[in-house]
Amino acid sequence: MTSSTKLTRSLVDVAMGRAPADLVIRGGKWVSVQSGEIIPNTDIAVVNGHIAFVGSDASHTIGKKTQVIEAKGRFLVPGLLDAHMHVESGMVTVTEFVRAVAVRGTTGMFIDPHEIANVFGLKGVKLMVDEAQKQPIHVWVQMPSCVPSAPGLETPGSSIGPKEVTEAMKWKGIIGLGEMMNFPGVFMSDKKMLDEMSATHAAGKTIGGHYASPDLGLPFHGYVAGGAEDDHEGTRVDDAIARVRQGMKPMLRYGSSWFDVAAQVKAITERKIDPRRFILCTDDSHAETLTQEGHMDRVLRHAISEGLNPMTAIQMMTINSAEHFGLSKEMGMIAPGRWADIVLVSDLMKFKAEMVIAKGQVIAENGELLVDLPSVKYPSWVTKSVHLKKALKAQDFILRTRAVDGSEVDAHVIGVIENQAPTRHLRMKVKAENGEVKSDLKHDLAKIALVERHLATGKVTVGLVNGFEFTRKCAIGSTVAHDSHHMIVVGTDDENMAIAANELAKCGGGQIVVMNGEVIGLVDLPIAGLMSNERADVVAKKAGTVLEGFKACGCELNNPNMQLSLLALVVIPELRISDLGLVDVTKFDFIPVLED
Amino acid sequence: MTSSTKLTRSLVDVAMGRAPADLVIRGGKWVSVQSGEIIPNTDIAVVNGHIAFVGSDASHTIGKKTQVIEAKGRFLVPGLLDAHMHVESGMVTVTEFVRAVAVRGTTGMFIDPHEIANVFGLKGVKLMVDEAQKQPIHVWVQMPSCVPSAPGLETPGSSIGPKEVTEAMKWKGIIGLGEMMNFPGVFMSDKKMLDEMSATHAAGKTIGGHYASPDLGLPFHGYVAGGAEDDHEGTRVDDAIARVRQGMKPMLRYGSSWFDVAAQVKAITERKIDPRRFILCTDDSHAETLTQEGHMDRVLRHAISEGLNPMTAIQMMTINSAEHFGLSKEMGMIAPGRWADIVLVSDLMKFKAEMVIAKGQVIAENGELLVDLPSVKYPSWVTKSVHLKKALKAQDFILRTRAVDGSEVDAHVIGVIENQAPTRHLRMKVKAENGEVKSDLKHDLAKIALVERHLATGKVTVGLVNGFEFTRKCAIGSTVAHDSHHMIVVGTDDENMAIAANELAKCGGGQIVVMNGEVIGLVDLPIAGLMSNERADVVAKKAGTVLEGFKACGCELNNPNMQLSLLALVVIPELRISDLGLVDVTKFDFIPVLED
Repeated sequence: MTSSTKLTRSLVDVAMGRAPADLVIRGGKWVSVQSGEIIPNTDIAVVNGHIAFVGSDASHTIGKKTQVIEAKGRFLVPGLLDAHMHVESGMVTVTEFVRAVAVRGTTGMFIDPHEIANVFGLKGVKLMVDEAQKQPIHVWVQMPSCVPSAPGLETPGSSIGPKEVTEAMKWKGIIGLGEMMNFPGVFMSDKKMLDEMSATHAAGKTIGGHYASPDLGLPFHGYVAGGAEDDHEGTRVDDAIARVRQGMKPMLRYGSSWFDVAAQVKAITERKIDPRRFILCTDDSHAETLTQEGHMDRVLRHAISEGLNPMTAIQMMTINSAEHFGLSKEMGMIAPGRWADIVLVSDLMKFKAEMVIAKGQVIAENGELLVDLPSVKYPSWVTKSVHLKKALKAQDFILRTRAVDGSEVDAHVIGVIENQAPTRHLRMKVKAENGEVKSDLKHDLAKIALVERHLATGKVTVGLVNGFEFTRKCAIGSTVAHDSHHMIVVGTDDENMAIAANELAKCGGGQIVVMNGEVIGLVDLPIAGLMSNERADVVAKKAGTVLEGFKACGCELNNPNMQLSLLALVVIPELRISDLGLVDVTKFDFIPVLED
Repeated sequence: MTSSTKLTRSLVDVAMGRAPADLVIRGGKWVSVQSGEIIPNTDIAVVNGHIAFVGSDASHTIGKKTQVIEAKGRFLVPGLLDAHMHVESGMVTVTEFVRAVAVRGTTGMFIDPHEIANVFGLKGVKLMVDEAQKQPIHVWVQMPSCVPSAPGLETPGSSIGPKEVTEAMKWKGIIGLGEMMNFPGVFMSDKKMLDEMSATHAAGKTIGGHYASPDLGLPFHGYVAGGAEDDHEGTRVDDAIARVRQGMKPMLRYGSSWFDVAAQVKAITERKIDPRRFILCTDDSHAETLTQEGHMDRVLRHAISEGLNPMTAIQMMTINSAEHFGLSKEMGMIAPGRWADIVLVSDLMKFKAEMVIAKGQVIAENGELLVDLPSVKYPSWVTKSVHLKKALKAQDFILRTRAVDGSEVDAHVIGVIENQAPTRHLRMKVKAENGEVKSDLKHDLAKIALVERHLATGKVTVGLVNGFEFTRKCAIGSTVAHDSHHMIVVGTDDENMAIAANELAKCGGGQIVVMNGEVIGLVDLPIAGLMSNERADVVAKKAGTVLEGFKACGCELNNPNMQLSLLALVVIPELRISDLGLVDVTKFDFIPVLED
């Protein structure tokens, strides 16, 4: 007898009362997302992690050893699913992410490990898949599609192409292709991109989309024709409507810094579009958001506050998401045959998970996790991924010039814009002093260094940045430096920059603030230089020291560490830095820092 | 480059205007089932059979050789899908079924070749799969699950079990498991049934259901727990609601003799259940219905007349059906990447297909088929499947008795009930004459003979039947004799019965009426004794001669040939006949015809 037959037989036997259930929930209000109804006085019987029976009376399934939970009229909601998200954005491991969100009612996550893939390639993805499989909730992995994001403009930590995608599609735990963000590549019929999508389609899996442009003209139509099946990059109501009409699933995103639900939900509430193909997701949640505000429960409360009725909002993070990934036979609704993923709440609008059942097990109650999470040992290639050729010295951060001492030099300076991902390409006059150009507090001119950290080439590219408004001798470093995740260091003092780089390397990566030679802020992220295996609340607190550190150095920007982490993302205009030099992203070409 | 990448590239290139479309439809009203909207002034561009672009202006995709169709404001409807049906019920081949329905707007059918599987087993299924693949519309095959339907009570033509199901799941063209009608087997955890369903589930395919009981108690719950994903056997509004709540898809059936839409559609129109998981299908359509009334267009008109709004009704035979079988990336909506299956109509309510496009090709216009259908050659094992040991004689139909001449004998008589599938188990007194019991017009007592026709065993089982009300010396024979499809002959005269059997064998099977030694009605069905490869209208006309023949013999029953064809179906109470004897279906055991 196959294991599948064994499971089915146990479900039938329990439903018929021939065998006892493992768990019975009695007397709840069944949120039947499949019929759009709330049905009172419902019992649920569970065996082998799965739902065997849902009906008005499950007493025939109760045996001596059956665990009985009295719902006492509370709502029985299918476990919440986050249809697209990056674990790395929480700066914690898969396990610690699960610890933070399972208590909130999340029982399934579809994660795109794009960041670790940029560091470790396919073996980084495998690491995430393996850790995902061990969780008490469902964690599915989307195979990253665009690694590196800008071939030729930087030395990537790793790369992924059609061959790797084809390989990964055979893995248990890979649910589809991660967001296809090279949208120009798609609408220009780039073979590599189309091959990755074909490999996914051939495997019967779901192709994630990412069309980050307001242009709904031909490029959008060309992108859609390429086969992406969802998109979370829409921001306007017309974006959502265009996507659903074209056969894509609009994923409305509500992350720590993404607020794309309010505008787009009007497609349903005002424009009366059928909501069946709309999905809610977070994309990126910081550890602090997770611990302070929540995860999909937060999205649900927000979506309801924006006018969605609770049933529709819940459908958009349960059955709709499950259907999207071809999983509606397994999850996304409370019905026989599905995993017993059930959240008990007293109030659908306020949605506070009082009890969370996942895979048939009570995993959390009133915010407390009741199960042990896997203890994952990471090999040293994972925890020691910051490879410097040698310890760095102040002189490694000198910006040299051939210009005559005392003369002025034209410089291309990266201009940070508060709360925006694009940068400005600034042209500033800077002074040559003894063969170098120094940072200049008065003109808000700091140095920015890109330290190669994957191959230990010893390469340090030095440039100039404006906008951080540092007032002190300081340096701030980060190995969270999208997308290749080299080490990026900004600072007003070469000595401090060297300290920041060396200290960060020592702890395996993370984010660091050094002022006057002292480390005043640090979140260590030893897993690939991107994630910590400490608890999310601990990591949130440590990340807080970095934010405080920015302030202490005089920087009052909102989200300065996010700004910092994007300065090497050589696909977003206008000016970025890579280990190969300064990049004019409007031309996809290098330019010198100094016109000397 | 894979063929999939080539296709995608062509779609992107056309969408972007870099390559010309094969076909452009201009200026239609887009029935966007995915968003629930009707969008005027829509153009569609098609290449390689697929939709490349849908939008307000496709003029950039028109090249010199592009075929341009002016919709002139007509509706552009996704091609209609019949989510569950048996081709054999139309008494025509797959090809001839397609000929009859493609002009009506059907562009996809999900067929369960249960009948031919009972005759030929797996190779019969393969025959249908092969023919299905050659059609200009999409024909998917569901692997029959219950062959024979009553092991031990008859000599089957063939049998199917988990091994055959596992094998068939690997075939291109097999979309899932055909209706699991052994519902007691499922709720009793019969290993063979569960194994068949497991094999289907493991292949990622859809398990068709069939729960033909009004009992919505534990047996229903047990059946659901077994994993069937749809059910077309519901007849009441509560049947539909129970199914959708339990995670199944209710398939509302409107066939030639099934009228299950009106009652169940109230779940949507009155009880306001979310219609997303409701599906419309025909199950069984006779050739006459197809040619006179239509196919899914007929179901659509009916569903609308029962109060469904046209958008919902269309969704229930397009996107809902496609999603059910995991095909919504391929069909079920008008959107890029999907097959170009489009029906042009002027009126959604009256729904008359004016133009039908399937796989990107204009296949029909105003009821005329514009494409050649495949010319299928059937091997002789298919067309010569009625195997008699030798030509039958009148004495083969004698019902012998040991009773003394002139005495009365207690007989178990099959009682036909008009318009119902169940029969009555009648106990009648019959007269022994010279060692035999004869038919008796006065008491409406005819003979019924089950002639073994698969293995040429020469076995003829003779019994008695009441209810046909024959008034003449006659015999009516049929090789459509569910489910094993032996030959069944009823009659009032042994000589006529022999003629009917022999003539039927000669033409490879079908249905025949013999009166006073003359053949007065005949539809020859040489393909497995079940189907004709003539056109549906020709077959309908021939089938009409059989119905006329029944009347000429005095039988005024409604649908007498359907009654006849069910008399050997040894799973429906109360009394049936098989090649192994008379069967008391209430006890699943044999009983003698005569208590002599």
